[in-house]
Amino acid sequence: MPVYNFAVGNPDPGSFPSEGLSIAAQTVLARDGEKLVVYPDQRGHAPLREIGATRFVKNNRTPMPIENMALTTGSMQAISLSCQAFLNPGDTIITEEFTYSGSINCFRKYGVTMAPIPVDEGGMLVDALEETLKDLARKGTPPKFLYTIATNQNPTGTMMPVSRREKVLALCQSYGVPILDDDCYADLLFGVDAPTSFYALDPDSVIYIGSFSKILGPGLRLGFFAAKEETLQKVLHWKIDGGTNNLAAFIAAEYLKGALWEHIDDINGIVKGKLDAVTKQLDAHTDAFVSHSNPQGGLFIWVKLPDDVDPLRLLDVANERGVRYGTGKSFDSQGRDVKYVRLAYGWASHEDIEKGIPLLAECVAEARALTVEAR
Amino acid sequence: MPVYNFAVGNPDPGSFPSEGLSIAAQTVLARDGEKLVVYPDQRGHAPLREIGATRFVKNNRTPMPIENMALTTGSMQAISLSCQAFLNPGDTIITEEFTYSGSINCFRKYGVTMAPIPVDEGGMLVDALEETLKDLARKGTPPKFLYTIATNQNPTGTMMPVSRREKVLALCQSYGVPILDDDCYADLLFGVDAPTSFYALDPDSVIYIGSFSKILGPGLRLGFFAAKEETLQKVLHWKIDGGTNNLAAFIAAEYLKGALWEHIDDINGIVKGKLDAVTKQLDAHTDAFVSHSNPQGGLFIWVKLPDDVDPLRLLDVANERGVRYGTGKSFDSQGRDVKYVRLAYGWASHEDIEKGIPLLAECVAEARALTVEAR
Repeated sequence: MPVYNFAVGNPDPGSFPSEGLSIAAQTVLARDGEKLVVYPDQRGHAPLREIGATRFVKNNRTPMPIENMALTTGSMQAISLSCQAFLNPGDTIITEEFTYSGSINCFRKYGVTMAPIPVDEGGMLVDALEETLKDLARKGTPPKFLYTIATNQNPTGTMMPVSRREKVLALCQSYGVPILDDDCYADLLFGVDAPTSFYALDPDSVIYIGSFSKILGPGLRLGFFAAKEETLQKVLHWKIDGGTNNLAAFIAAEYLKGALWEHIDDINGIVKGKLDAVTKQLDAHTDAFVSHSNPQGGLFIWVKLPDDVDPLRLLDVANERGVRYGTGKSFDSQGRDVKYVRLAYGWASHEDIEKGIPLLAECVAEARALTVEAR
Repeated sequence: MPVYNFAVGNPDPGSFPSEGLSIAAQTVLARDGEKLVVYPDQRGHAPLREIGATRFVKNNRTPMPIENMALTTGSMQAISLSCQAFLNPGDTIITEEFTYSGSINCFRKYGVTMAPIPVDEGGMLVDALEETLKDLARKGTPPKFLYTIATNQNPTGTMMPVSRREKVLALCQSYGVPILDDDCYADLLFGVDAPTSFYALDPDSVIYIGSFSKILGPGLRLGFFAAKEETLQKVLHWKIDGGTNNLAAFIAAEYLKGALWEHIDDINGIVKGKLDAVTKQLDAHTDAFVSHSNPQGGLFIWVKLPDDVDPLRLLDVANERGVRYGTGKSFDSQGRDVKYVRLAYGWASHEDIEKGIPLLAECVAEARALTVEAR
């Protein structure tokens, strides 16, 4: 049985730059091989931090000093180290109502309560945030940080406008709440500019998190974070792993120093084409897919299911028929069985999209019928 | 001013297999490049675990199932994850009196007390261990684990005989204390067999920690641990980093599958030659170097200084004259200013050894004179 996989947040496999990385590997091993018998710098390979800073400047028109950056094992390690540095069991943090399942799982392991802020197509709602901040202050459980994916949000595929970012930041500043600014999809933009990041608006109260997984591949496990010195040290205190992989960092830096913008343009063209194909299929099956977000970048689209679908039944039916997707539940900060699915469109082929999305529509219809029968 | 660096536990730079790794990189990127757009397995690249298991079998004549293994960002991550899984602030653990400075720093960050066991040329003393276990039980502070580097101990360069390992294990078993078996120098053997590891003696109560840093280089950040399923999961629970670097793991596995034993033989020959050169210089300057251990493998030799040397003064004098070494204090689990130095002989060249060790002897003489003058 063919499997149509819309579950995984991987980039397009065909655009992985195997050849460019192979040439880069030959170059760095011949030139710098002996440097690999030495432990990496605590903040990681400087030339790769330079590249991280370069792409930050493009979106934000403000520099990111590489002394304020540290490489990590993917952006996920930056998130978990921030948890270790800032959180104790029983603490409260604020997140978007729907957010990245990997972050949710991490927050749960650290034993914290996630106060959810409802979202619309511009991200978290400012009034609701203010209400929550007030409420938490009243209860004596001020949040330790606000975690947000403001650009190409995962799973909702939305973009927070800069005007809203400024309001969110002002509220957080007035309540003394630091922001964990997960900007790992910032390079995947389909013909739009990314709004200025929280970190660019206020580097003192924000931890910026970036990734090379989305423009290269998660198998390279290269991400980074940036923060003011005091915060950087507080987070690095818990990075007890001897340093971030220099072999991978050497190779990625060597490749990206020549190819960064061209490669980003290439993959954005390819992934945008896939998003268009997904959207076309979704819009052709509105019985099954009630509505969906309109991503301007990133890897995910958030799709509303009919009210009479049981998400658990849909999962069974889809599994049987070989369609994989992200369940609403896994991205709901409160673990509710919400009637949404997250479709990832970077990894699936055009053929997968053209066959798999109509098949998913059939599964939805079947799950509705089953729901009715069961009544 | 030339600098003679005997401080760093790096392998010999000249024997780093740049060319072999470059060929391996070309092979895996051409063959498996697209697999790097996918997240690594939770336990890491299976072929590299296979190689870790192969070298375990050589020393222990018993298999290490790769399902019980997980790759980590160097062996250091395995140690810190074990701390996160097993320790709470205020807990007690048992260590060799002198042990790896990186581990000591990690244990301190987790806020635990290290109960030190005195050592001789065969590692920790069994009677003292029994006394300590009894004492801790009496005080109601049973140790959460015993951390040991039994093979080519860092910093002392000693080897625990199997008979003593059996006694240590029996004591730990009778007190219900798990063992953290840091075996990261197990491949660096100078014509001797390594005694059976704790893990081979009892895979149920031991976490085994291995490394590829010592046979390749720490810049590759590849280590692993092995434990029974329940313990493996307990430790992996805290490995929130999206997986261990697959680019590095693919390349290392491809290179080592053909070259493992030849490469290990090569580096052991080279490093043994350097140890002999260091020992010769130490024995030619017995005024400064009262005694030293006799490593049968590994990267470190432990050198006793005269009683009338002030270690802090020696450090100043040696820094001024360009000689770097590991201070006794940094390897003392209790942070005392003990009159030892650790010399690392993998990284330094023969020329460094021939000039640097006599220079260090001069520094010792100078630090003694200063000590006398100051009286």
